[in-house]
Amino acid sequence: MSVTPFYWNKDHLQVLDQRLLPHQIKYLPCRSPKDIAQVIRSMAVRGAPAIGCCAAYGMALALKRNGIGNPIKVLEKAGVRLKAARPTAVNLAWAVNRMMELAKKAVRDGRGLFSVLLEASSGIQEEDVQNNKSMGWHGAKLLKKDSIVLTHCNTGALATAGVGTALGVIRQAFSQGKIKKVFVDETRPYLQGARLTAWELGQERIPHELITDNMAGFFMKTEKVDAVMVGCDRVVANGDTANKIGTYSLAILARYHKIPFYVAMPISTLDPNLKNGDEIPIEERSPDEVVKLGGVRIAPTNTKARHPAFDVTPASLITAFITERGVVRPPYKKTLKKLKTQ
Amino acid sequence: MSVTPFYWNKDHLQVLDQRLLPHQIKYLPCRSPKDIAQVIRSMAVRGAPAIGCCAAYGMALALKRNGIGNPIKVLEKAGVRLKAARPTAVNLAWAVNRMMELAKKAVRDGRGLFSVLLEASSGIQEEDVQNNKSMGWHGAKLLKKDSIVLTHCNTGALATAGVGTALGVIRQAFSQGKIKKVFVDETRPYLQGARLTAWELGQERIPHELITDNMAGFFMKTEKVDAVMVGCDRVVANGDTANKIGTYSLAILARYHKIPFYVAMPISTLDPNLKNGDEIPIEERSPDEVVKLGGVRIAPTNTKARHPAFDVTPASLITAFITERGVVRPPYKKTLKKLKTQ
Repeated sequence: MSVTPFYWNKDHLQVLDQRLLPHQIKYLPCRSPKDIAQVIRSMAVRGAPAIGCCAAYGMALALKRNGIGNPIKVLEKAGVRLKAARPTAVNLAWAVNRMMELAKKAVRDGRGLFSVLLEASSGIQEEDVQNNKSMGWHGAKLLKKDSIVLTHCNTGALATAGVGTALGVIRQAFSQGKIKKVFVDETRPYLQGARLTAWELGQERIPHELITDNMAGFFMKTEKVDAVMVGCDRVVANGDTANKIGTYSLAILARYHKIPFYVAMPISTLDPNLKNGDEIPIEERSPDEVVKLGGVRIAPTNTKARHPAFDVTPASLITAFITERGVVRPPYKKTLKKLKTQ
Repeated sequence: MSVTPFYWNKDHLQVLDQRLLPHQIKYLPCRSPKDIAQVIRSMAVRGAPAIGCCAAYGMALALKRNGIGNPIKVLEKAGVRLKAARPTAVNLAWAVNRMMELAKKAVRDGRGLFSVLLEASSGIQEEDVQNNKSMGWHGAKLLKKDSIVLTHCNTGALATAGVGTALGVIRQAFSQGKIKKVFVDETRPYLQGARLTAWELGQERIPHELITDNMAGFFMKTEKVDAVMVGCDRVVANGDTANKIGTYSLAILARYHKIPFYVAMPISTLDPNLKNGDEIPIEERSPDEVVKLGGVRIAPTNTKARHPAFDVTPASLITAFITERGVVRPPYKKTLKKLKTQ
């Protein structure tokens, strides 16, 4: 991939400002957990695996200041801040918790905390790329030659540490001659499809057509769509799945048209602590993101808008999960439990 | 209503440029069938009943020039031009054909052609308003007190000669205390919901919330939606219905959530000459309208996009049609036939 959404640079994390894509490539230097929380909250960086990685680096950055006092307390405070940046994707909490455990162990072992956390952050980043490659291999097996795949939001290199989840599967399948065309939902209101996925697919010369979200049903009916392939922000014990707003509608449309609906899920996105989708906190973001575009107001002044950033797709609408350890099929209560405890 | 989408002004038709709404109110003077075809094609005026009315005036305008030769031939030429402006809505053809019949009769009767056609255009306009009021009365009966209704595109005063079709029903129901809230799909790519419907509802102080199209399923699931209410561009003999892109997806979502799906249909939108929806021509408009939003390019340069402007909802997903003569229920082959021959 020719672009990386974030990288460590001597003493700070450089984070690509994805809000400016595809028009401008600009990195934001992040030197503290506060900076990291800010780039996550403002969606300069987004995508469950990517914000998980950035949060890990945020924990390391908490230890960079001089005279910080009790490092575990400092890390706990940073963890609270980072977890609160966005509520739905579980990867944030997963990364913070992993760093806390490592930090406590390092204290017990008398090792240098900062270097342990920095190394672990880098490890999470590398692991994510490897997991995405594995998902790509497992997922590509689900597709036949010359498939037409429909995807939503951005699940590519930009949403992860590299390669991508659902888009990683598409990449791998394309290299095997299995992708004829990708329908890209523009994904309102943030337009991750139009701005980010179309850009990534263009760079890789993977044939694609951009559509507005409300065209998905039309193309499922009028052109052969072989599979819907999406990512996820949190999968709970019974398989209910939070993902970008619009995913739930797509799953219903796929079921109506008898099209398989696949969710690419790194195991770090599985949250076995919640029983079902009703327990997942759904972030409601500013209505400004719906009534404005690029600072230009499209709706009348004072129009009230809603902006749930995610929805929950019930497990019953999901054909299979694609993970780094293979494809997981129903009954999910059983198969996902097995996966987490392996 | 405080706004009119078009009106006759001495010797020409003034047409509101809806592309500039809600920010600017500007009328375009139309002095020929060519002008009328242009405002229809460019979507300065849109909505099946509204473009039908404008096409009628376009036929009258064909006779305004001096030394035009054989008036029937002139009208035939104008009719071809007007019908070709947009292919999906049948109201265009309906209005042109009605004017042709009246013109031929006027020639036989030795009456002044221009005044006959101008009067007939004005008649179509008044009839449309009356039909919409009737639809409002019939449709409101389908709703209970404090209903939450979801609508798509703009079917209000702006889409018609006044009052509106589906939005006319909502208006009437609101005056009867039956509307608690309206969810307004923004309706990409042209944003008729965000720009026009939100504007009309705001002017009437009808409570509403603007949502992106991909949120419809989420709100059907998480808030009680009592009915989906949409308009139509062409309804064929078996009840299959062409309407703004996204309608088909909404109908599937409504069915999944067991929500009634109503189509407000003036009888002028019924085309009994086509047997089923496969025969309806679907206009595919410029991809520019997808890759740009509010004039700002959102997708990467050279990204290929698709833009079907309409889709077809199968009759099986439609709970009932609301017409000026009452509510029509399945079996549609029978009930719609009866309606047209009454």
